[in-house]
Amino acid sequence: MLAVARGDEPADLLLRGGRVFVPHTREWVDVDLAIADGRVAGWGGRDAHEVVDVGGAALTPGFIDAHMHLESTKLWVDEFVRSVLPHGTTAVAADPHEVANVFGVRGVAALADAARSLPFTFGVCASSCVPASPFESPGAEVGVPELEELIDDVGSIGVAEVMNFPAVIAGDSEFRAKIAAAGWRRVDGHAPGLCGCALDAYLVAGVESDHESTMLDELVEKRRKGMWVFIRQGSASQNLRDLIASVLEHGTDRVALCTDDREPDTLRELGHVNDCVRLAVECGVRAEDALVMATVNPAEYHNFHHLGSLGPGYQADVLCFDTLDTWEPARVWQAGRLVAQHGRMVPGAVPDSAAPEWMRGSVHLPDVVDAADLTIDPPASGTVKVIGVTAGSLSTTAMVVDLGDASVDVARIAVLERHRRTGRIGLGYASGFGLQRGAIGSTVAHDAHNVMLVGTRDTSGPADMAVAAARLREIGGGQVVVLDGQVLGEVRLPIGGLMSDRPSSEVADELTHLVALARWHLGVELAAPFMQLSFLGLSVIPELRLTDKGLVDVTRFELTGVDGRA
Amino acid sequence: MLAVARGDEPADLLLRGGRVFVPHTREWVDVDLAIADGRVAGWGGRDAHEVVDVGGAALTPGFIDAHMHLESTKLWVDEFVRSVLPHGTTAVAADPHEVANVFGVRGVAALADAARSLPFTFGVCASSCVPASPFESPGAEVGVPELEELIDDVGSIGVAEVMNFPAVIAGDSEFRAKIAAAGWRRVDGHAPGLCGCALDAYLVAGVESDHESTMLDELVEKRRKGMWVFIRQGSASQNLRDLIASVLEHGTDRVALCTDDREPDTLRELGHVNDCVRLAVECGVRAEDALVMATVNPAEYHNFHHLGSLGPGYQADVLCFDTLDTWEPARVWQAGRLVAQHGRMVPGAVPDSAAPEWMRGSVHLPDVVDAADLTIDPPASGTVKVIGVTAGSLSTTAMVVDLGDASVDVARIAVLERHRRTGRIGLGYASGFGLQRGAIGSTVAHDAHNVMLVGTRDTSGPADMAVAAARLREIGGGQVVVLDGQVLGEVRLPIGGLMSDRPSSEVADELTHLVALARWHLGVELAAPFMQLSFLGLSVIPELRLTDKGLVDVTRFELTGVDGRA
Repeated sequence: MLAVARGDEPADLLLRGGRVFVPHTREWVDVDLAIADGRVAGWGGRDAHEVVDVGGAALTPGFIDAHMHLESTKLWVDEFVRSVLPHGTTAVAADPHEVANVFGVRGVAALADAARSLPFTFGVCASSCVPASPFESPGAEVGVPELEELIDDVGSIGVAEVMNFPAVIAGDSEFRAKIAAAGWRRVDGHAPGLCGCALDAYLVAGVESDHESTMLDELVEKRRKGMWVFIRQGSASQNLRDLIASVLEHGTDRVALCTDDREPDTLRELGHVNDCVRLAVECGVRAEDALVMATVNPAEYHNFHHLGSLGPGYQADVLCFDTLDTWEPARVWQAGRLVAQHGRMVPGAVPDSAAPEWMRGSVHLPDVVDAADLTIDPPASGTVKVIGVTAGSLSTTAMVVDLGDASVDVARIAVLERHRRTGRIGLGYASGFGLQRGAIGSTVAHDAHNVMLVGTRDTSGPADMAVAAARLREIGGGQVVVLDGQVLGEVRLPIGGLMSDRPSSEVADELTHLVALARWHLGVELAAPFMQLSFLGLSVIPELRLTDKGLVDVTRFELTGVDGRA
Repeated sequence: MLAVARGDEPADLLLRGGRVFVPHTREWVDVDLAIADGRVAGWGGRDAHEVVDVGGAALTPGFIDAHMHLESTKLWVDEFVRSVLPHGTTAVAADPHEVANVFGVRGVAALADAARSLPFTFGVCASSCVPASPFESPGAEVGVPELEELIDDVGSIGVAEVMNFPAVIAGDSEFRAKIAAAGWRRVDGHAPGLCGCALDAYLVAGVESDHESTMLDELVEKRRKGMWVFIRQGSASQNLRDLIASVLEHGTDRVALCTDDREPDTLRELGHVNDCVRLAVECGVRAEDALVMATVNPAEYHNFHHLGSLGPGYQADVLCFDTLDTWEPARVWQAGRLVAQHGRMVPGAVPDSAAPEWMRGSVHLPDVVDAADLTIDPPASGTVKVIGVTAGSLSTTAMVVDLGDASVDVARIAVLERHRRTGRIGLGYASGFGLQRGAIGSTVAHDAHNVMLVGTRDTSGPADMAVAAARLREIGGGQVVVLDGQVLGEVRLPIGGLMSDRPSSEVADELTHLVALARWHLGVELAAPFMQLSFLGLSVIPELRLTDKGLVDVTRFELTGVDGRA
C-alpha cells in the first residue's frame, strides 16, 4: 500500500478520468484514483496492473445506510448484499433486533459471522431492548451482560436504538448500564414525537441519534439540541418529504439518510439509499449535499473512519455514475473490486454465506394445536375489547364492540408462543382487516416473533387458524394464507421464522403474490396485511395489542381482559 | 440530572434570556439554559437555585484549541488555565512534547494529574516522536511501550503529531506500531509542505490531521484528500490569513482553529482561540462559521463528545458575549461554574495545582564547566561551517565562513547535555544573532532541551557562556543574559527547565525584559532571540543544527564536522 502510495510500485487498479466527489469540500475534482489492497492508495496517475478509463464519469464514495434492520428485507445477509450493492449501498449500520429476539447473542453473532466474508461493511449494532416489554415472550433476552457480550465479543459498533425511552427518561438502572456499555461507541435512539423536557432527559441520559422524526418541528428541535438525525425513507415510514426543509434551510450537519425498514419489493422497484438521495435531490437538495448525507456523515457518526470519502487511505468503495439523473450507478467497486454494473451483480462477486443450520426449525409449537385451542370464549357481557387496525398506521385503537352487532368488521386473533413450546396462547379480537373468509398467519411478529394468526369470526376461523399454525410449524416459519382448511399460498421464512433463504426477486414475487391471495380469496382490504399483522403483538405501541400472555393495554402498560365491560 | 431535565427538580443554575448558538444548524435560538451537575440539563424555563439573566447576550460553547503545546506558554498548567479561561478557551488538545523529552511518561502523567483538578478540559495527546532524531539526547525516550502506556494508563486522547513523516512514509515498523496503538483514537499529523505521493503515503499510513499548512494550495490538497486541517495562528507561525480563503470558498467541514505555540505575551495581548476567531471574522468568515471551527469541529475531531455544543447533556462550558465585536467574553462558565468575567478570573476559581517537586532541579551538568570546555578549536583550514539564522524563520542555512573575515557576524554556540550529567558538549558556530558582547543561554531547546548557549566569537565568549551554564544549573533551568561574567537578567523556568511556577503576567514581563537586555547590552538583533536559539538544536529542520553530539547536516541526516573545507 505505502509503496503504491509513494509511486514506487504499481497499483492494483487505476480509475482514470473520473470526476471525484470530495465530501469535505463538496467539490468535484478531476483526478485519477490509484487503488491497492482494497483502498485508495493515491491520487494522480500511477502505474497499475489494470486501468479503467471512466471517461469523465462522476465517482463518489459508496452509500451508507445510517440505520436499518436486515430482517425487514426478509433476506439473509448475502442476498441482501446482492440486492443493494447494484444500487450503490456498500455499508450499513444494522440493528439485528428481530434475530436477537429469536436467538439472542448467538443469532447476532451468526449474522455478523456470515456478513464477514461478504464484500460489504455490515456494521452490527447491539440491540438494546429485547424483549420490548415484560408482556412479550421472545426466544432470548438481551440484558446488560448480553449487551456487553455483543459489544466486546461480537464487535458491535454501538448500542442500537434504545426504544424504551420511558425507562431511559425515568433513569432506569438497567438502561443506564446499557448506555454506559457503549463506552466510546455510539448510542442510537428511537424517540418518536419526543420533545421538550422528555427529549432533554433522553439526551442527558446519553442517547445520540434518532430516526423517528415524522414532523419538521420535531426534527428541528432534535437538531438544535445536538442530536444526530437520520431522515428515514422506508417502505412504510416515508419521512423525507416532510423533513427535508430542515436540510434546505440549515444544511447537512449531523444529518444522514436511512431506510430503517425496506421490503424486498421496495428494494427492487425503488432501490435503497440511492432512492433516498434521488428523492432528496428531487426535493431541492444540492446533489453534493445529498451525497454528504449518504456518505461522509453516516461514516462519521458510526466511526466508520475508513469509509465515506475517496481520499488516500479510505476503503475503495467507489460508485461510478455516468449521469446523476437516475442515481443508479453504472459501476460499483467495493474495496477496489468491481461488484456490480448497470444494476446487476457481477456473477460470483458475493459468495454464498448461508445461515447456520441451527437458525432453521425455530418454530416450536405443541404437536397439536387445534381449533378448540384457538377458540375464544366470549364474555357473558357479549361486549369485547377489539384491536382497531387502521390502514397505513402502526398505531392501533382500543375499540369496544358488541359481538351481537354483525355490521362491525371483527376477526379473531391469536398469538402462539413458539420459542419454548410452552403452549401458551393469547386470544382476542381485531378489526380493520376486512377478512371475509379463512385465515392468515405469520411468524414475523414484532418484537417477540411468536406465531400470529387472524381468522374469521365464524366457527371456520379457528379451524383455518389451526391449519395455518400447523403449516407454519411444518415449514419452519413464514407467512401463510389458508381457506377452508387448505393452504392457498405461503412464503417460507425458514431462518428464524424471519428471513428467506431464496433470492431477493423470488421473495419479492412471493410476498406480492401472497398479499394478492389474501385480497382476492379472503377479502382482506389492507394493502399490507402481513406487515400490519406483524405489529399487532408489539406491546409498546399504543393502544391495544395481543401477546401470548393476553391483551395488553399499552396506554396503562398492563395486561387486560377481553371483556369490554370490565 | 435526569430529574432536572424532566423538570421534576430545580436546576443548579438557569441562564435566562440568552441567544444560544447552535453549531449544528448555525442558528441563534432564544432559549433559557438549565444547568445541573456541570452539564446542560435542559432547554427552557425551569426552577433553579440560581437564576442569571443575561439580557439577550449571545451564549456560545467554550472554545477548544485543536492543537497546542503547553510548554510554549512557559506556564504550568494551573497558570495556563488562568490565562486562557478569561478569553473563553475551556478545552485544549495538548501535545506535552517537551515534558516528554525531559521526563518521559512520568512527566506527562504528572501534567495530566495536575490538570485533572482544574476547571478545564486538558486533553493530553501521546507524544510520538521523542527523541526527534538519533542525534539528540533527551532526558527520556518514548518508544512503542511508552506510547501505549500514555494511551492506556495516562489516558491520552490520541497519538500526538507524528513529526517524523519520512519514517512514516517509508513504512518504518516502529511508527506503524505507534499509529496502530491509537486504536479508535485520533492520530495527529505534522506535514509541512507535504503533497502529492508523499502526502498520499502519509495518509495511507493512518495519519488524520495536520496543522502545518502555510500555503493555500497545500491546505486545499490536504482537505480534498480527507485530512482534518487545523489552521494555526501562533506567536511565531501565523497562517490564518494565508489559509482562510479555503474556508470562505469551501466551508468549515474538517477545519478547526489552533494556536500550536503561543508565548505568554501573546496570550496577554491578543488572547487565545478567541483571537483566532476574531481574525477569521476579520477575514470575512461568518461569525457562525468561525464558531463552528472553534467549538463543535475540534470537539468532534478529538472525540470530546461532551463538548462543543450547548444541547442538553453537553458540559456547560458557556461563553457569554455582550457583543461579538471584540470576541472577549463578558462571562465564562466552565462546567456550569462562573470562572471568569470581563477578562479576569473569578478569584479562587482555579485552584493551585503545583508541579511535583521532582520536576524541579532537572538541569544536571558537571560540577564545573569552564571556558576551556566551551572553547572550540578552529580547524587548520580556518574555514568553518556556520549555522545561518534568519529572523522569523525556524529554518537555518548551512553557511561556510572564513574565520579570518571579521565582517561576517559569527558567534560561538554550544550544547551541553543536561539530563544525565554526561558532560557531553557539542560546539560550533552560528550567524545572525548580531551578538556583540556577552552570552545568552537557555534550557528550552527543542526537542531534547539540553543547555544551549551562544557567546561572542572573541575569547570572552566562552567565559560568559560558562557563567550562563553555571547560572542555569543554579536556578534549575531557564533563560539568561550574561555580560563580562555577570548575570544581567534571567527568567527562571524551574519546572523541567521549561516552565515557570510564576503567574502569567510576571512571566510575560520577565521574558520581554530579558529580550530587551539582550538587545541593549549584547547588541542582539533578532526580535525573538531565545525563541530562535531554542530551535537551533532541533535536528529535523534543515539545514544545519547543533546537538550535544555535534553538528548535524539535516539535509543528509548525518553528523558532520565543523571544518568548512571537509
